[in-house]
Amino acid sequence: MTAGLDPAPILDDITGLAAELRVPVREVARKAFDDLAHTESAQGVLAEAAPLPTVDIDDLVDQPDPFLVLLDGVTDPHNLGAVFRSAEGAGASGLLLPKHRSARVSATAAKSSAGAIEHLPIATVAGVPAAISHLRDRGVWVVGLDEAGSRSVFDLTVADEPLCLVLGAEGAGLSRLVRERCDDIVSIPMQGAMTSLNVSAAAAVALFEVRRRRSL
Amino acid sequence: MTAGLDPAPILDDITGLAAELRVPVREVARKAFDDLAHTESAQGVLAEAAPLPTVDIDDLVDQPDPFLVLLDGVTDPHNLGAVFRSAEGAGASGLLLPKHRSARVSATAAKSSAGAIEHLPIATVAGVPAAISHLRDRGVWVVGLDEAGSRSVFDLTVADEPLCLVLGAEGAGLSRLVRERCDDIVSIPMQGAMTSLNVSAAAAVALFEVRRRRSL
Repeated sequence: MTAGLDPAPILDDITGLAAELRVPVREVARKAFDDLAHTESAQGVLAEAAPLPTVDIDDLVDQPDPFLVLLDGVTDPHNLGAVFRSAEGAGASGLLLPKHRSARVSATAAKSSAGAIEHLPIATVAGVPAAISHLRDRGVWVVGLDEAGSRSVFDLTVADEPLCLVLGAEGAGLSRLVRERCDDIVSIPMQGAMTSLNVSAAAAVALFEVRRRRSL
Repeated sequence: MTAGLDPAPILDDITGLAAELRVPVREVARKAFDDLAHTESAQGVLAEAAPLPTVDIDDLVDQPDPFLVLLDGVTDPHNLGAVFRSAEGAGASGLLLPKHRSARVSATAAKSSAGAIEHLPIATVAGVPAAISHLRDRGVWVVGLDEAGSRSVFDLTVADEPLCLVLGAEGAGLSRLVRERCDDIVSIPMQGAMTSLNVSAAAAVALFEVRRRRSL
């Protein structure tokens, strides 16, 4: 539905596409629109959609060439969305999210992902340490990213093996149990006074480093 | 000054350090605090500081081993702060910001940078194309990052030459004139449905790729 706020040509494109696909469009008053929009600064159009389907962790492992991302306790929906976008852009094949202590795949996360959440299958897992053990049992190499890692992410020797990158929470990093369960813990080598990057920047660096290595 | 909102032990650390450094501390009412704070969700402490000093573009070039970042039209202060943090973390030696069409180095940008702006010298430049020409005249290799780049950032052959990375605006990328002035235009090779990354994610990937190459 549209709020008739913005006469930009993109509105015509959207209503045109909706007509083609037989999606009903309704114009509503500003107040009603704002009540329905779950994001800050909605831009005048919102869509009602079915909940995103989730898949099973084994569906992600059984794909060809798994390149997975497991998020341990990322609670900010903007960060979650940004990591989705970078993961999809780096060619990751799936995302694992814990049921608890994690941002939901909300409207805010979807917006921050710039649509990437529609392109990347998601599995929810009950517990992160158990999920890591399961992945390892299934032959997936599990690499955690944490400032505590003594090895640089740039020293990883990545080939075509099934791989899962574990990314921790803003600030806190990975929990001890999660670190212990991983095959390897790597860090991004910091050169200045900062001791860490924003989680979405760190995720982007690690994701594209894995992608670069896999393409060599 | 503190708003007495949060009894966290970090407040004691802050007032202790302030006392050591003879910085006067005042407690103020919530309302007065909120009026003074220029950021969203200030966390109970704010400091009055002198404006950040800026340096001349030639001061940045005359440092040993220049690794500079020039931002062309980044208007979101959160993105500006995040790029500062990644640049400092990747060991960049200075930042160039246009006087116009750019986010200010505001309280919001400073907070998003996690303090990095205090560690990285900043030069403001009147025009981006002129600044690029000046850098090239001074022997700096200027590399623009833009989706239009036909070469991958991972194919750059970076050694120890003075280098400036030019990063464009959210969405719009680099202007034609800026692209034409650069020595080289590179892109981040996208693997999925997304055609671009968030500007701060893209900046982090490119910055750490340059750092990785320089460390080889």
